Amino acid sequence: MVEHSGPDVKFVNKYCPSSSSSSSASSSSSSSSSTAREMKILATLRGSLSRKYPQKNGEVLSAQYGINLLLVGLALMLALAYQGPTVTEETVLAFLSTLMLMQLLWMICYVARLERKRNAPPERDANAATSWIRGGLTLLALLSLITDAFRVGNYVGYQECVSPVLGVYPVVHALHTVSQVHFLWFHVKDVIKRYETFERFGVIHAVFTNLLVWSNGVMTEAEHALNDHKRRLSAVGSFNFTDWESTQPNCNCTTSACSMFSSSLYYLCPFNIEYHILVSVLLFVMWKNVGRTLDQRTNQKPASSPLLITGSGDGPFLLLGPAFGLLALASAITVLVIYIIHVEESLEARHAAISMFYWFGIVILACMSVAGAVGLVIYRLEDWPMDTAPNPARTLDSKLLLGSSIGSWLVCWCSVIAVGGATNSPNYRWANLGYAILLVLEKCVQNLFVVESLYRRRREPEERGPGLRATHNSILSPSQGNEKIFAVYDGIINHAYESPDKQCENDKQAYSRNSEKHVEHSHGHGTPETPNRQRQLLKNIAIFLFMCNISLWILPAFGCRPQFDNGLEEASFGFPIWSTVLNFALPMSLFYRMHSVAVLFEVFRKI
Amino acid sequence: MVEHSGPDVKFVNKYCPSSSSSSSASSSSSSSSSTAREMKILATLRGSLSRKYPQKNGEVLSAQYGINLLLVGLALMLALAYQGPTVTEETVLAFLSTLMLMQLLWMICYVARLERKRNAPPERDANAATSWIRGGLTLLALLSLITDAFRVGNYVGYQECVSPVLGVYPVVHALHTVSQVHFLWFHVKDVIKRYETFERFGVIHAVFTNLLVWSNGVMTEAEHALNDHKRRLSAVGSFNFTDWESTQPNCNCTTSACSMFSSSLYYLCPFNIEYHILVSVLLFVMWKNVGRTLDQRTNQKPASSPLLITGSGDGPFLLLGPAFGLLALASAITVLVIYIIHVEESLEARHAAISMFYWFGIVILACMSVAGAVGLVIYRLEDWPMDTAPNPARTLDSKLLLGSSIGSWLVCWCSVIAVGGATNSPNYRWANLGYAILLVLEKCVQNLFVVESLYRRRREPEERGPGLRATHNSILSPSQGNEKIFAVYDGIINHAYESPDKQCENDKQAYSRNSEKHVEHSHGHGTPETPNRQRQLLKNIAIFLFMCNISLWILPAFGCRPQFDNGLEEASFGFPIWSTVLNFALPMSLFYRMHSVAVLFEVFRKI
Repeated sequence: MVEHSGPDVKFVNKYCPSSSSSSSASSSSSSSSSTAREMKILATLRGSLSRKYPQKNGEVLSAQYGINLLLVGLALMLALAYQGPTVTEETVLAFLSTLMLMQLLWMICYVARLERKRNAPPERDANAATSWIRGGLTLLALLSLITDAFRVGNYVGYQECVSPVLGVYPVVHALHTVSQVHFLWFHVKDVIKRYETFERFGVIHAVFTNLLVWSNGVMTEAEHALNDHKRRLSAVGSFNFTDWESTQPNCNCTTSACSMFSSSLYYLCPFNIEYHILVSVLLFVMWKNVGRTLDQRTNQKPASSPLLITGSGDGPFLLLGPAFGLLALASAITVLVIYIIHVEESLEARHAAISMFYWFGIVILACMSVAGAVGLVIYRLEDWPMDTAPNPARTLDSKLLLGSSIGSWLVCWCSVIAVGGATNSPNYRWANLGYAILLVLEKCVQNLFVVESLYRRRREPEERGPGLRATHNSILSPSQGNEKIFAVYDGIINHAYESPDKQCENDKQAYSRNSEKHVEHSHGHGTPETPNRQRQLLKNIAIFLFMCNISLWILPAFGCRPQFDNGLEEASFGFPIWSTVLNFALPMSLFYRMHSVAVLFEVFRKI
Repeated sequence: MVEHSGPDVKFVNKYCPSSSSSSSASSSSSSSSSTAREMKILATLRGSLSRKYPQKNGEVLSAQYGINLLLVGLALMLALAYQGPTVTEETVLAFLSTLMLMQLLWMICYVARLERKRNAPPERDANAATSWIRGGLTLLALLSLITDAFRVGNYVGYQECVSPVLGVYPVVHALHTVSQVHFLWFHVKDVIKRYETFERFGVIHAVFTNLLVWSNGVMTEAEHALNDHKRRLSAVGSFNFTDWESTQPNCNCTTSACSMFSSSLYYLCPFNIEYHILVSVLLFVMWKNVGRTLDQRTNQKPASSPLLITGSGDGPFLLLGPAFGLLALASAITVLVIYIIHVEESLEARHAAISMFYWFGIVILACMSVAGAVGLVIYRLEDWPMDTAPNPARTLDSKLLLGSSIGSWLVCWCSVIAVGGATNSPNYRWANLGYAILLVLEKCVQNLFVVESLYRRRREPEERGPGLRATHNSILSPSQGNEKIFAVYDGIINHAYESPDKQCENDKQAYSRNSEKHVEHSHGHGTPETPNRQRQLLKNIAIFLFMCNISLWILPAFGCRPQFDNGLEEASFGFPIWSTVLNFALPMSLFYRMHSVAVLFEVFRKI
């Protein structure tokens, strides 16, 4: 969480160590002149505590600040969730507004400082956030601004009976959103190397402010889900639900648009949530980049290869993935609409809707698993070059994918246990089981595919060249010093630690038949066509998975949550435990899908 | 969670790439001979999926396996916690026994395989687990074995009415404990480089098996705590608690020792819990080491300096830390006994006991914070060499410290909010506030101190030598290629990225007075005495913090949990939320203290 995952960055000045070394090491000898010593201690402390605080401690200190900020916010929200007398919604919103204003102030300071030193712009991490990601972010921010406008509208309608904080918060949030998007567009790639301690705290403050606003949104969503659940139960007749409108203020709306505002807010909320978590991730990468040394060789924007756009085999091939993806998207929206309508009808319609959801899920997850597996097999067959340069953005992407899978995996295993031990057997019982197991499998395969894709490097035109010879040449001439070419064989040879000669023999045994049989082919018919076809296949897979992940985000984000409605898990775990599990797991699952979408788009562009 | 934090390990064989490269790259050209191609694909797949699966994917795949294993277990335990019909205690214990037997089988395979290849022993990571840690582990394992014996005794007494699984589980657990301790003593330092995929899965299986047994223990403990809480409430009279003995079986004990067994189990349980979490951590380091390349220069066991044992200034100095530490320990045990007796008496005695706990906590935490801060100041003043060599054990140690702080920080902030918004004001209200804030502060300072200590390197005798000259020489002769010497100045100079000349100027400005004033001292009176005195001070601090952390582990581990008893937080958060928070946070907090003890001991030995 706190450490650089690349090799530790060394802050070593080889040019003038003498002055500092003598000043500090001299402390060991000055026992006579005590006042001079005290002055020295003070000077050293002042120096080391302000600007020269060591990297590692700066990291730990700022991480601790951020974590505690988050925990204060979480504690406030927990108290709010209890609806006790201690904390009201106004307290939480005021706290969040304060944090956002502090972030605003820091961003202004940061930009102003950069302006003053225009002649020495900071280095930039080319991998940090592509313009596509920032574009998507801007879209989400726009929807977030609409949310703010509706919130203000809602406040104006009810302003007689609600706290002014409810009006101030959306205004501050809108201000924060606009300036944050501006900041991200122009500064998220910055690699901060001056004034590290101050900047570190600023960035981590921004990260955790966004995380807190995200948590607040998630809590609101959880309330929505609970209310939905109760309303549906009362619609089916198994629950007497009269107070589900208790979240409304106690006075009448003075404008005519209040109900429109509140129902629109229900549908806009998911975008606002995704906006904040995405910003957190981008800013976290910026924080990891503070004080980092960039490797100039690897930190180059990948030139968009002409083959990418007008490749020889692009035309007919880049149709299947998008076509199936669009089909999945359209079906998902259909399923969503049918589900939401039918789940509030009679018990039979409800069961039919839940069954439909599970069967749709089984089909789409099976397709996704197969697509991911095909992608992995292609990587196994084709030895694409590996990219092992340090890259905090990529490391974080893989960790986040794995970490956010945990939520829905937990739900899946709970479902499996619930289905196994269920006493009643509704018609969707075994579909639920299949869906749960396939979901575990699909996330495993997709994670493997994404991680493998992220760690593969796009082949340069000369590497791709006419068959093998170019590659061979570069391998057999280590004098070029291009170690990366060797990494090409990561996928095949990973036993460099055995004695070289022995390894040679092993490999030769394993591959001798193949190489003997095919080496003449490669020299004879070697054309760039076939790897290009495989690239096209991978591109199709990536775009298909991209669309499927959007579909699987839409379903739970807009109210299709059979985990609440099917009753099997609730019977095995009880409502308190099961709703806690879902409130923990569903936001993670939504984040997983959104993050997969972003990463798969990167993969698509990279292949 | 999954990535190597050091530089990615490259598995590159530079000596014979030709055979594999030709075999795999040839796939791009063979479009004519389809059967030969299929055979080749199969051969490549077989090769790449078994032994030659790439490092990154092996990591992700095994991590996913481990996480899902944990989640299955957690889902079972959640179902058990609900006490519904789906899952009984026997299911969970049978699941855990199966996992332990699988791990046993794997360990036997691993050891047998190593025996067969005795001539080529695996490399060993000198930093992985010192013999001290393994010694402590063995002690915990012995207590764990006693627990097992008592469990078997308990089973024999009740065997008429309980499932045989309750008798089989402790036997399997004892077998598992003995063989695991043996395995850890002889193999935890192994750096696995052959059969990676199989070993990776075995190690991760072992990690998560121990984590699951830990979770099970934590759940039992949470039950204990809840029962304690109810019994105390009923003792004070505010709660009618008749069914707290419901955890006992439904028949009479046939031996006379049953009540002795069950009350002893209550006190032995914490050690069993700590044993399993410690094993998980050690095995996790082993998993991170799979396939790692060791840097031979840094992977040397630090020779125990004679100064450590019979240093010049050791005698009088190494008294204060242990003395104050023992005082803290003795007071903690006194507080524990008084607390447990008084908290079940009248309401006034209860309030007095809680007050006493908080005031004791405030005193000890204040002392610890001051000690940690003094340590940090010493590091700032004295430029000890930095150690930045890759070291998974250390990286994990720092991350675990930070991660496990989260639990008690959350509890603290909840306490702060509860105190702030409390409607009634018992006499311990403000003591609770002070305790919470000091606890946050103490953990921050201690984390900083530990991380800083871990990343400092012990100075070699020649570096420590007579004054400055030796150091100066090595700095001014980069031809020695010893870059680490430069890292000495990490603490002081971390702005190497500014242009060198400018940096020189800055540093010279900052330090000019000091260096001018003191450089003559250092040449005149340079003796090793003063840094040694500072080393002694650091050693005292480490041993004091070590003992204090033991004290703060003992208190909650043996039933001194005022967070349950004081009622303030419960009023603000409600019993369901607050007990969930505590059940999540207390195990983390206990782990934090135990882990701090282990790490501080390392620090003590290292300084």
